[in-house]
Amino acid sequence: MVHGITALVAQPDLGFRRQVDDELGAFLDSRRDRWIESGTRPCFSVLRSYVLSPGKRLRPTFCYWGWRGAGGEPGPQIIRAAASIELFHSFCLIHDDIMDTSDMRRGQPALHRQFADIHARSGWRGDATRFGVNAAIVAGDLLAMWSDEMLQTCGLDPAGLRAAYPYVARMRADVCVGQFLDAEEQAHGGSLSGAVLVARYKTAGYTVQGPLQIGAALAGAPQAVLTALGAIGRPLGEAFQFRDDLLGAFGDPKVTGKSDMDDFREGKPTALVALARDGATAHQARQISALHGNPRLTVEGAALLRRIIVETGARKALEAMIDERVEQARQALAAAPLSDPAVRGELELLLTSTAHRES
Amino acid sequence: MVHGITALVAQPDLGFRRQVDDELGAFLDSRRDRWIESGTRPCFSVLRSYVLSPGKRLRPTFCYWGWRGAGGEPGPQIIRAAASIELFHSFCLIHDDIMDTSDMRRGQPALHRQFADIHARSGWRGDATRFGVNAAIVAGDLLAMWSDEMLQTCGLDPAGLRAAYPYVARMRADVCVGQFLDAEEQAHGGSLSGAVLVARYKTAGYTVQGPLQIGAALAGAPQAVLTALGAIGRPLGEAFQFRDDLLGAFGDPKVTGKSDMDDFREGKPTALVALARDGATAHQARQISALHGNPRLTVEGAALLRRIIVETGARKALEAMIDERVEQARQALAAAPLSDPAVRGELELLLTSTAHRES
Repeated sequence: MVHGITALVAQPDLGFRRQVDDELGAFLDSRRDRWIESGTRPCFSVLRSYVLSPGKRLRPTFCYWGWRGAGGEPGPQIIRAAASIELFHSFCLIHDDIMDTSDMRRGQPALHRQFADIHARSGWRGDATRFGVNAAIVAGDLLAMWSDEMLQTCGLDPAGLRAAYPYVARMRADVCVGQFLDAEEQAHGGSLSGAVLVARYKTAGYTVQGPLQIGAALAGAPQAVLTALGAIGRPLGEAFQFRDDLLGAFGDPKVTGKSDMDDFREGKPTALVALARDGATAHQARQISALHGNPRLTVEGAALLRRIIVETGARKALEAMIDERVEQARQALAAAPLSDPAVRGELELLLTSTAHRES
Repeated sequence: MVHGITALVAQPDLGFRRQVDDELGAFLDSRRDRWIESGTRPCFSVLRSYVLSPGKRLRPTFCYWGWRGAGGEPGPQIIRAAASIELFHSFCLIHDDIMDTSDMRRGQPALHRQFADIHARSGWRGDATRFGVNAAIVAGDLLAMWSDEMLQTCGLDPAGLRAAYPYVARMRADVCVGQFLDAEEQAHGGSLSGAVLVARYKTAGYTVQGPLQIGAALAGAPQAVLTALGAIGRPLGEAFQFRDDLLGAFGDPKVTGKSDMDDFREGKPTALVALARDGATAHQARQISALHGNPRLTVEGAALLRRIIVETGARKALEAMIDERVEQARQALAAAPLSDPAVRGELELLLTSTAHRES
């Protein structure tokens, strides 16, 4: 059993990531002409770079190993199908950053900030910030559409695509429902049960469970394999989100590429803060209320909030919730009807690196 | 040849509209449980009412007659497929109103305003306006996903769905590209050629051309029919957008359900205003610049802007552009290889009512 976020990080498979990125680049380039019939070259370039910016390509990876777990052979079609989920992920990130008014993503300005910068630099009419947000809403929409197109035209057998469709549809809708719950949780003040539900819908489904099952269904997996992958993916996806919450509070922005203040300032209704509230003294509870969701939170205020999160035992409790879910996923993996031992080994490695990552 | 916006409005087929709305309601209700696993009942109800609010159901109608034009028989599956485009339309309207900061739609508050009202009424935490916008971004996303799901599960033959897919993908991407061009046009100040391009991408594709071709492709139409429907749909869709511009400036808000000030205040880069600029004296040009895009435009200022639009000949010129396109569509329809005279008659009627509507 591995504890602590620094313990183990799997070696990324650079070959696989390069293949995914090659397919993404080729797809986007094939759509460029239609996009830039008018003068939108700078925005297209920024969007392309955004999609291809360094990232873990975790969702394509899970999709690929779901495929392999169901006996699928390596090939460009499954890489394309897997890469399409990365386009979907970019769509989610873009809209999420607008909604959270996050300025940074993957160590760069968020897409709406980059579009606003183009507007400002070019001396265009109107408000640059508003242009940035509007353009990013549309760019997100477009990537969602293109994600579907990339999947549907990946070259795999139509029967596989049909078999995977229910998992695709569920993944997509669950992300949106989860985003909605997230907004409502924030409006309601947040609770542990609410945060777990948001993690399940908003993140678990499309980060691990959905991609694993989509990959397997594309390969014609029997129901037993799909169910087993669901039993692995759901707790692992929740663990992923809880790790994300910890990284948002305690991570190194130079490593995560994201601010370690945004979640606090935004008042993000995380499981971490819900646990802190549940374990707080009356005095600490007042401090949390004053600090969490304060858009002008100072570095000192954030440090105090972190100290309270540690002192209430919330950080440890959330680590325990992660461990518990990783253990569930591990047991589900051990029991899963996967015939290829290499696939089992890869999933084991992914499981550890997903739960105990630093970025 | 019919001139003037009041000349002819086809009788809406209430039976068809009711069938479309029944399918939309049934689909949304089938997704309700997943949506409201947490406490999101009020927002779901508002979204459902928004989708089902009175509207022309123009896109399902074109899809249906495209299907019939290719020899498809009436039945619930094609109603479902056609209704799925209405969900896509709702997604477009929701995001469009956010981007344009429009407060009214179909005679009701825009969705982001309705969500903001729920927040304010419920005394939730945080900023009601921001919640409204965020919730509406996600609700739009969700309807886009559900639109795909409703189409893919409509019960039609997979071969038809595959044949229609290129038209579906193009329709979706073109709307987004058109929205992007629209934002850029606004930032650039607007031009007639830009406005025509925006009309083509943002509106023509998904209002007439896309639905017609999707319906026909679902029925297995040969390429000649698909091409003919494209030749009808593209000019008619552009005419639809130009009529929209005229209604946004000269329409009766009680009939259109939309403000007659928003387009002006927003500085929407319409063909109408581009034509006025092109025909303006230096004095009029300065007046247009001062009035168009002024968020504090008064009723008197709007009246002056309307007068300038008339005096420069822009209104008449845009009516002529509509007539020209309707005539192109009419000739394309006359030449189209459609065997059923009833279908031809319906399309003829739709053509007239689409170009010469009052709302």
